[in-house]
Amino acid sequence: MRIGDSLSGKRVLITQADEFMGPVLADTFRAHGAVVIADTRVLDSGAAGEAAVRDAGTVDVLIANLGVPAPSTRAHQIGDDEWRHVFAHVVDPLPGLARGVLPQMLARRSGKFVVMGSSTAFRGQKRTATYSSARSAQVGFVRAVGTEVAPDNVHVNLIAQNFIENPMYYGPEVQALPAFQERLKREVPAGRLGTPQEDALFAVFLASSEVNFFAGQSIPFSGGWAT
Amino acid sequence: MRIGDSLSGKRVLITQADEFMGPVLADTFRAHGAVVIADTRVLDSGAAGEAAVRDAGTVDVLIANLGVPAPSTRAHQIGDDEWRHVFAHVVDPLPGLARGVLPQMLARRSGKFVVMGSSTAFRGQKRTATYSSARSAQVGFVRAVGTEVAPDNVHVNLIAQNFIENPMYYGPEVQALPAFQERLKREVPAGRLGTPQEDALFAVFLASSEVNFFAGQSIPFSGGWAT
Amino acid sequence: MRIGDSLSGKRVLITQADEFMGPVLADTFRAHGAVVIADTRVLDSGAAGEAAVRDAGTVDVLIANLGVPAPSTRAHQIGDDEWRHVFAHVVDPLPGLARGVLPQMLARRSGKFVVMGSSTAFRGQKRTATYSSARSAQVGFVRAVGTEVAPDNVHVNLIAQNFIENPMYYGPEVQALPAFQERLKREVPAGRLGTPQEDALFAVFLASSEVNFFAGQSIPFSGGWAT
Amino acid sequence: MRIGDSLSGKRVLITQADEFMGPVLADTFRAHGAVVIADTRVLDSGAAGEAAVRDAGTVDVLIANLGVPAPSTRAHQIGDDEWRHVFAHVVDPLPGLARGVLPQMLARRSGKFVVMGSSTAFRGQKRTATYSSARSAQVGFVRAVGTEVAPDNVHVNLIAQNFIENPMYYGPEVQALPAFQERLKREVPAGRLGTPQEDALFAVFLASSEVNFFAGQSIPFSGGWAT
Repeated sequence: MRIGDSLSGKRVLITQADEFMGPVLADTFRAHGAVVIADTRVLDSGAAGEAAVRDAGTVDVLIANLGVPAPSTRAHQIGDDEWRHVFAHVVDPLPGLARGVLPQMLARRSGKFVVMGSSTAFRGQKRTATYSSARSAQVGFVRAVGTEVAPDNVHVNLIAQNFIENPMYYGPEVQALPAFQERLKREVPAGRLGTPQEDALFAVFLASSEVNFFAGQSIPFSGGWAT
Repeated sequence: MRIGDSLSGKRVLITQADEFMGPVLADTFRAHGAVVIADTRVLDSGAAGEAAVRDAGTVDVLIANLGVPAPSTRAHQIGDDEWRHVFAHVVDPLPGLARGVLPQMLARRSGKFVVMGSSTAFRGQKRTATYSSARSAQVGFVRAVGTEVAPDNVHVNLIAQNFIENPMYYGPEVQALPAFQERLKREVPAGRLGTPQEDALFAVFLASSEVNFFAGQSIPFSGGWAT
Repeated sequence: MRIGDSLSGKRVLITQADEFMGPVLADTFRAHGAVVIADTRVLDSGAAGEAAVRDAGTVDVLIANLGVPAPSTRAHQIGDDEWRHVFAHVVDPLPGLARGVLPQMLARRSGKFVVMGSSTAFRGQKRTATYSSARSAQVGFVRAVGTEVAPDNVHVNLIAQNFIENPMYYGPEVQALPAFQERLKREVPAGRLGTPQEDALFAVFLASSEVNFFAGQSIPFSGGWAT
Repeated sequence: MRIGDSLSGKRVLITQADEFMGPVLADTFRAHGAVVIADTRVLDSGAAGEAAVRDAGTVDVLIANLGVPAPSTRAHQIGDDEWRHVFAHVVDPLPGLARGVLPQMLARRSGKFVVMGSSTAFRGQKRTATYSSARSAQVGFVRAVGTEVAPDNVHVNLIAQNFIENPMYYGPEVQALPAFQERLKREVPAGRLGTPQEDALFAVFLASSEVNFFAGQSIPFSGGWAT
């Protein structure tokens, strides 16, 4: 038995599939034999999230890949528009995704719901108030929902990633900055960005049915930056 | 030198002052010689939060006392209205409060910003997804902003309370339930509800200037339920 | 690429291999093509740990499977003998294991060091002071060492397990108790014990080289009991 | 009512009172009207801890002020002597202190047991394996014991401090180093060392009876370095 064998033939819905970690997630789940539904609509409300699941039909695995560029506004200058924009894209789809996918998972007593989140929820940084707050809301959601549905063999967990190579947050132009490379060496024990493939394999691990004993957890994945 | 002496003559703005922990906070800060501005408007947006601070004038201490009744909806039945209602009252005022109060605190290189939050952000419970998520957003906000403004001697921290006697969450009718009393004994090491006075004194501690070395922290205050 | 492929031909040292999670770990790593060195000596000191590694020769993966029956003494009755006995078996071997295995891993710039730990480090329980303290010492060791050696591509992490079926802590006689079954339902969201196989597959995940971006982490694995 | 009023006339035992935070703790508790028993013996075992309490007679508040210089050995070079030396001084006295002080506190249904610990338990750093592990053991002890005795109104908590000025860890010669001052600015949001007085007042807060709703907690106190 290998981790990920159970994904063969499973229907995996990936949201916002052309952005953030979407493309590598789609490739990696397909390489494990999954039927990937790569939904590319913009999700900025619960209703949109619910519609995405409804359109997908049976969903064995839901990957909530919700990302939006992170503002770097100083705390006292954050406008309500910035705040609501980030929450609309990172947080508000969650209840709709839950309305869409949990009833079928609970009925089958089987399902995996993985949120691609952020370890900025766990370690303070300057100029990240909006983003850190929204990503923390995801953590609270996962903790509560994961606790609630685990008795029915439905597993909700979150990858609290940071310093993973992806075009939204760490594109080539960021990586090319000497100051960024110095920061990596100084702040990230691994001393490098994580690869998209590593991230997708972690998602595979949490989405597979060989191991069904995580529940409501947000696990840092940041080269040791957050532990 | 006693903890709290520094509050004498300080201007303390308490939001939503007639609800949640508002009345006991007002009494306790006044008993420490503070000038309490007890703002009772409903805060359901950043703009409202910003206006509350602007109307208060000089604010040495801001107590973000933001509460709303906690829904107990199952995760797959949470509507977008419930979700947005709770976030509007618990989360959305935060950036407006920051816009209002941080510029003057940063200019003076002095200030305390205490959020009356919840330890439901730290421990999973069923039927609390909306509330846990919103309270977690507060934790992320405090962590980031607290990190950002600490170099300027402005201190932002959060009381992650639970099982504190208050009319919004633990009124007499809840306390009278035998099942609730049993739950207290089983789940809360202290075996009782915390008193409003204990909670207000913890707020006094975090709002005083005798100790200025907390930053960006969310400290559980729940009789040992969360640690 | 599948998670665990990289273990093929790897030399995996499992300590205390006939106890705690040892047998299932050995079976599972062998099933992934690893060469398992199943060391069965009693480890109760750093020197013993160092000797185990030295005798094993090349070690690509070290599984520190350190267990001892958990006392249930009340806090004020814990004798120094109990305390030192548990620390000798759970904690003291760690620096010796590090002395033995890290130099070769650092020289090769490759290696995995996984500690089979406990989530009692993360959630308070009565009558567990000795055990919780010793397991927490493991967490602190992993956090520091994992941070230190990650720049050299050596990864030290810990499985903070609880409620995993194993003869040392949850043997058949414990499982047969109605009170234990009730406790499982009430306290563990998953509502069951984790299987040894699930635990071993989590160890496989952390010991594999497909994903190399965890460092210094202690990850709860307890059916949602700790998050 | 002011925080700390309750200390008047209370008997406060401070261990290792001439080292680490001992002198400032003694001064500060005395300034609050407490009867301070400043025990200066070396504590390196449970038996020694138990004897210290026995000799002190009635103890209303126990401050476990246990410190030892922190080694900076690389992980693979830590000898068993270093390991056992640090654990003997930081960890091993704990069960003896508990044997000594908890029976009288449980009998009176009143008491405070505060451990002067370290936030190195919460954030990984290089070359700190021994120290981080020992300080983490304190955290686990406090979590378990605090949970166990809270029903009897005995409160055990820990100050997880770092970057507090004291001769053992941050003496004048350390403070004078430009590299240290740069590190403070870069890593500690507060941008400075905490003062001994701030630390002692935090201990006063946790040792006072005005607030009795903390249990088993380890609270970071490090200018925002750990949150």
